[in-house]
Amino acid sequence: MLEVKVISFLWLIGILAEAMTGALAAGKKQMDLFGVVIIGCVTAIGGGTLRDILLGNYPLIWIENVHYLIAIAAASLLTVMIAPVMRHLSKLFLAIDAIGLAVFSIIGAQKTLMLGFSPEIAIVMGVVTGVFGGVIRDILCNQVPLIFKKELYALVALLTASAYVAMKFNGVPEWINLSISLVFGFSFRMLAIRYKWSMPKFDYQYQSDNAH
Amino acid sequence: MLEVKVISFLWLIGILAEAMTGALAAGKKQMDLFGVVIIGCVTAIGGGTLRDILLGNYPLIWIENVHYLIAIAAASLLTVMIAPVMRHLSKLFLAIDAIGLAVFSIIGAQKTLMLGFSPEIAIVMGVVTGVFGGVIRDILCNQVPLIFKKELYALVALLTASAYVAMKFNGVPEWINLSISLVFGFSFRMLAIRYKWSMPKFDYQYQSDNAH
Amino acid sequence: MLEVKVISFLWLIGILAEAMTGALAAGKKQMDLFGVVIIGCVTAIGGGTLRDILLGNYPLIWIENVHYLIAIAAASLLTVMIAPVMRHLSKLFLAIDAIGLAVFSIIGAQKTLMLGFSPEIAIVMGVVTGVFGGVIRDILCNQVPLIFKKELYALVALLTASAYVAMKFNGVPEWINLSISLVFGFSFRMLAIRYKWSMPKFDYQYQSDNAH
Repeated sequence: MLEVKVISFLWLIGILAEAMTGALAAGKKQMDLFGVVIIGCVTAIGGGTLRDILLGNYPLIWIENVHYLIAIAAASLLTVMIAPVMRHLSKLFLAIDAIGLAVFSIIGAQKTLMLGFSPEIAIVMGVVTGVFGGVIRDILCNQVPLIFKKELYALVALLTASAYVAMKFNGVPEWINLSISLVFGFSFRMLAIRYKWSMPKFDYQYQSDNAH
Repeated sequence: MLEVKVISFLWLIGILAEAMTGALAAGKKQMDLFGVVIIGCVTAIGGGTLRDILLGNYPLIWIENVHYLIAIAAASLLTVMIAPVMRHLSKLFLAIDAIGLAVFSIIGAQKTLMLGFSPEIAIVMGVVTGVFGGVIRDILCNQVPLIFKKELYALVALLTASAYVAMKFNGVPEWINLSISLVFGFSFRMLAIRYKWSMPKFDYQYQSDNAH
Repeated sequence: MLEVKVISFLWLIGILAEAMTGALAAGKKQMDLFGVVIIGCVTAIGGGTLRDILLGNYPLIWIENVHYLIAIAAASLLTVMIAPVMRHLSKLFLAIDAIGLAVFSIIGAQKTLMLGFSPEIAIVMGVVTGVFGGVIRDILCNQVPLIFKKELYALVALLTASAYVAMKFNGVPEWINLSISLVFGFSFRMLAIRYKWSMPKFDYQYQSDNAH
């Protein structure tokens, strides 16, 4: 069906965009080319892999179909080649990343519902799929994960997955649901970047607290 | 049975205390509110989740019963609100945290035995359940995990889980076993903090070693 | 069979060597003895554990046979005792570590093939088994994982696993295959250290990029 092809196509754009963010993060830490490929792969498949491990849903997609890994590795290496011109393409790149975020959040929720889990867990897994690739990337690069600090990244995942699940349970046809969720998630993310929207921060600097 | 209710109640106190330590750690890194909630959740459920993944024990508790996640998220946000008075409550907080540590260690061992694993693995899983939530929290906040450095945290988990397993295999009734293990773990931890007990440290600073 | 005994013996050397690298890394962060043991265990079993979780292959080896954990804990503590003389043994130590890397990569690929997965996934899992113990160790010690930066570590794992899988699919008898792969991986790693071979690095320092 056309809708399956479109969502698969967008998902492919999403993992390739995530691979590119991973490769760039590796470059900032001056990793070698193999490190770039590994970070690219982990960023692209990390969120979905964590979701499937948490759900006990085996076999993992990239283990069943190894071509995804090869495409992701290629995207990571391509990123190294085109990095010098990336600064001129940074708006395009942010847009691709925003599509990836929205698609991952929707697909994460969709798959979780298909496996028979509750709508609340579907929303949680939408967030896991959408943001944890980037979290694992930042951990491997020894940084505080950016998504906890910047531009509503995780909130976009939460609201996009929630919108998808809410429409699904209210009988909205899948095709319309996917379109609306995707446009909503993408637009929300781009507006958050454009207008520097952010959530209130919690700043707790009482140093002598020794609870852990 | 009363004992089930008591241990469930203490477990709930434990996960809420862990959520609070997670929220405070997030505040030290000036995360936004969503980051606070995610770190709170991961700290509270991370140890038990890692245990169940290692044991292949599905479905995960918080996936079957999503209310735990909602309670943990609420505890994380509550922590943000009461943070200004936390410094006056730090002793109470340390006591709650110590209850959580003891309860998690005991429940981790108990569940592992119920699933039919060996007593040694039950002890290992008691430690995993007791301390790995905090380890994952510290990794996400980009710090060397505190539990490897401070006040016998991990040793308390090890000895508490060992005491529970040893009494279980020597026919001590569950009710008495739970009570003794809990009082032992809690007291040991509070004494370790009070008297600054610590284990010998291994300080290896030979820099030119390039093995990895 | 003799070949099974030899590979088991080398695997044991491998996990003990990995435990030692973990203990030394913990010592550099001045962890206490319990932290040393935990980091030693995670380094030694982390790669194989991650592989089996990704493959959904339960029960985990060290859960079925807890004696491995005890041996690893002992190796970690032994490392603390012999650390003062380690600088005189650093070449021996690098050689043991290189054996471990080669053996882990081969065993990782071998087990994955035995479970019926594709040759490509067997190679990926050889890399995971060979290097991710060290990656998890570096994350727990709050460092950028060394393997992404130094001396072809990950590339050795990739090529060693690839050699093993290629010979396997070309009918080379297991015994000869294991020997050649092992000698190849070990020699390649030692030469890379000796001649400071390294891969090209990707250095991307364009700071104003705010994609993540």
